[in-house]
Amino acid sequence: MDNQWKEELDNLIGDQERVLKETADLVSYGFDGSFGQYQPERVVQPNNKEEVVSVIKIANQYQIPVYPRGQATCLSGGPLPIKGGIVLDTCRMTEKLEVDRENLTVDVSPGIITSKIKEAAEEKGFFYPPDPSSAHVSTIGGNVAENSSGPRGLKYGVTGHYVLGLEMVTPEGEVIRTGGRTIKNVTGYNLTQLIVGSEGTLGVVTEITLKLVPKPKSRVSLLAVFDDLGDSGRAISGVLSAGILPSALEIMDRHCIEAVENYKPSGYPTDAAAILLVELDGHPKAVEDEIDRVDAICKQIGAREVQVAVEEDEQKKLWEARKLVSPAIAKIKPTKISEDATVPRSKIPDMFERLNEIREKYQIELVVFGHAGDGNLHPNILTDKRDHDELKRVEQAITEIFEAAIELGGTLSGEHGIGNMKSPFMEKELGAVGIDMMKRVKESWDPNNIMNPGKIFPEKGQTQVVLTD
Amino acid sequence: MDNQWKEELDNLIGDQERVLKETADLVSYGFDGSFGQYQPERVVQPNNKEEVVSVIKIANQYQIPVYPRGQATCLSGGPLPIKGGIVLDTCRMTEKLEVDRENLTVDVSPGIITSKIKEAAEEKGFFYPPDPSSAHVSTIGGNVAENSSGPRGLKYGVTGHYVLGLEMVTPEGEVIRTGGRTIKNVTGYNLTQLIVGSEGTLGVVTEITLKLVPKPKSRVSLLAVFDDLGDSGRAISGVLSAGILPSALEIMDRHCIEAVENYKPSGYPTDAAAILLVELDGHPKAVEDEIDRVDAICKQIGAREVQVAVEEDEQKKLWEARKLVSPAIAKIKPTKISEDATVPRSKIPDMFERLNEIREKYQIELVVFGHAGDGNLHPNILTDKRDHDELKRVEQAITEIFEAAIELGGTLSGEHGIGNMKSPFMEKELGAVGIDMMKRVKESWDPNNIMNPGKIFPEKGQTQVVLTD
Repeated sequence: MDNQWKEELDNLIGDQERVLKETADLVSYGFDGSFGQYQPERVVQPNNKEEVVSVIKIANQYQIPVYPRGQATCLSGGPLPIKGGIVLDTCRMTEKLEVDRENLTVDVSPGIITSKIKEAAEEKGFFYPPDPSSAHVSTIGGNVAENSSGPRGLKYGVTGHYVLGLEMVTPEGEVIRTGGRTIKNVTGYNLTQLIVGSEGTLGVVTEITLKLVPKPKSRVSLLAVFDDLGDSGRAISGVLSAGILPSALEIMDRHCIEAVENYKPSGYPTDAAAILLVELDGHPKAVEDEIDRVDAICKQIGAREVQVAVEEDEQKKLWEARKLVSPAIAKIKPTKISEDATVPRSKIPDMFERLNEIREKYQIELVVFGHAGDGNLHPNILTDKRDHDELKRVEQAITEIFEAAIELGGTLSGEHGIGNMKSPFMEKELGAVGIDMMKRVKESWDPNNIMNPGKIFPEKGQTQVVLTD
Repeated sequence: MDNQWKEELDNLIGDQERVLKETADLVSYGFDGSFGQYQPERVVQPNNKEEVVSVIKIANQYQIPVYPRGQATCLSGGPLPIKGGIVLDTCRMTEKLEVDRENLTVDVSPGIITSKIKEAAEEKGFFYPPDPSSAHVSTIGGNVAENSSGPRGLKYGVTGHYVLGLEMVTPEGEVIRTGGRTIKNVTGYNLTQLIVGSEGTLGVVTEITLKLVPKPKSRVSLLAVFDDLGDSGRAISGVLSAGILPSALEIMDRHCIEAVENYKPSGYPTDAAAILLVELDGHPKAVEDEIDRVDAICKQIGAREVQVAVEEDEQKKLWEARKLVSPAIAKIKPTKISEDATVPRSKIPDMFERLNEIREKYQIELVVFGHAGDGNLHPNILTDKRDHDELKRVEQAITEIFEAAIELGGTLSGEHGIGNMKSPFMEKELGAVGIDMMKRVKESWDPNNIMNPGKIFPEKGQTQVVLTD
């Protein structure tokens, strides 16, 4: 019995190349963009939903864990096969990418890379706004599973806001369609948004209908340099309360600026307390007027320097350094732990203060950047997983970061998801009943708990994130 | 035992005035804006969540149905106490209406009238876009339960898009908080959007955190008159594919125009095939440019007349007649059955054709208006519920309307909800497995099936909507 599921699985797909069992293959499917290394027993690469159905039916029959996976850029452990079993690699499911011009929608297969959707939309004059930093690598299936977002969340919302309908294989191997292709749909429960962000614990998404919007006709960017962190916070409030909704409003603290300049000098001022990067898009005349106002607001609040970029290549240059943040800080130390604790926008200055205290208290490398307009910060801790003493301090620091976010009225995760990296803290935010209501849904859909087990819900006694002892 | 729950309930709330048991009171809580009359055994009017918890605990203990209710403007039977039991009238829960200027959010109690939220937001320079026609009467609790929307859904989305967080009493009397006050939140399953639109079948919402947006600085309206229904459809596509996203894009067919003009002459042309009403909002310079382009597009496609209204009172006048549609058509015959079958935008001309065929085939009074920009039409049937022969034809017509919507790739309900009026058609749209997955959620949260039983899910053998024999 122990091996029967493997035999059935190995014979399931005619093309043996798509069922991997060699150790080298299994190892390479054992990690993601977060932390930790695990080993599955099989990796299956289905081409279509029928094959997904067959795999799930075997897994459900033999109660074998199934870990759906896209490109594994996940920063919270979503695709990690922490209980062995099967990794279901959806990257070959790329058949469909169909833009519907009349209805402003696009139907996509889960293995399509997100940036390809953006390109297909732009070719026809449309815009797909969600922009996780991984968009050139990550799959839309992964984005849907994690409800990913990026700088444009402030004005445009997150991946889930663009998902109109889904096709999903349930944990028992049935195919359902949720939602549809209309903006308005109140026919029964909103299963679409229940599945979005459920991190592959409720089934395997096999097709997605996304909403597109008209492509903004104009886009400009602005960089503002502040000597005082509080001033940068006031500038954020100033812009938004003037009725201006930027398409992106990013902040980088001094530690982050330094890291980028050390990595690849971009001309960012390393002596500044913080810089804000603002992008505005929309009708050319509106954008022209608004950028002048953002400029004036920043200067009035005390920005020591403001640069406006109108030409595309100038804008690209301004944003380039922002895009280098992740590789730049990864150079500081070998292990990077990226958090996405999110607070109500007004609490950003308090959150920065708490993060500074945590940095001092635990003597750790902590840099902060993020999507200031929507309160979604990225405190990144740079450490070395072989240094057990430091890791202990990191563990405590992470706990305090989560506690700070919750105390300030925020949430554990704005866009990375819970995975196994944040599950020990779920009860602090949601309470026992809140978690129980989620668990009831999970149990009712997946009675054998085969879909991505060990994620979102804390394991009994699980209290640590990076330490394993 | 049969009366013990009543005794406990009657003694529960010190203020006896808020537990109603006289027949006259019970009768007046037995209907809503749809069809049918039922009688509860008790009506309770809680003041706060603690009282809701107490009521739910008694109901759950004795397995008594609970029907949450706002102002009962529902068009699909949401609050109808079809199995007796308790009507839980939330209209007294009006304690909280707090706008948070810094975070662009507002916290509200469920009994607050929707238009009060709009006013409170506007006073502080913000905008709460969802605009069900009932906004001056309906409660936000009801809007959340039904995921209501209106003309502005096209650009701004529906009620659910503005709900960031909820407080809810579960069917077992526990209090949970879902979501929060940040735009980005991926901490576990999206229970917020599962609860929005669940029509009171999953619990009683006791507080809501809504997102606000900056108030648009400018707004203009336009009326375009078409002699050909197909042309009006092409104008809709023309505007949207030009990259213009109106804040409202409404259509009224000839039958609807006639009804309005008979009710209160507004100067609408009764010989037109259709009129489009377009509203644009945003930055003044963008709006100015875009309204010229909409004007040109409509004329180029063949509008026989286009009126642009810039001043507020002129705009009000243009929209006044649209707002009279419901009372106007209610004068045609005593019974009005209002549907909201929704199709992908490109299928609007096909849907109009199908509706015309249905009108002819069954010889019924059928007028159509609706939110053309997002495919959300409102076919309204005017009849007399005492005329059994006609009602039989109406029943068949309704069935065909739903079938047409589903065949054209649409949905049973865009914004009114399922209630008991559309439940017999759920399986046609969702399939048996789709309904089963919804039911599993319901059963896992409400094991005694006390919350709004008889809604959304079809009763065994239920096949008819308006006929009761």
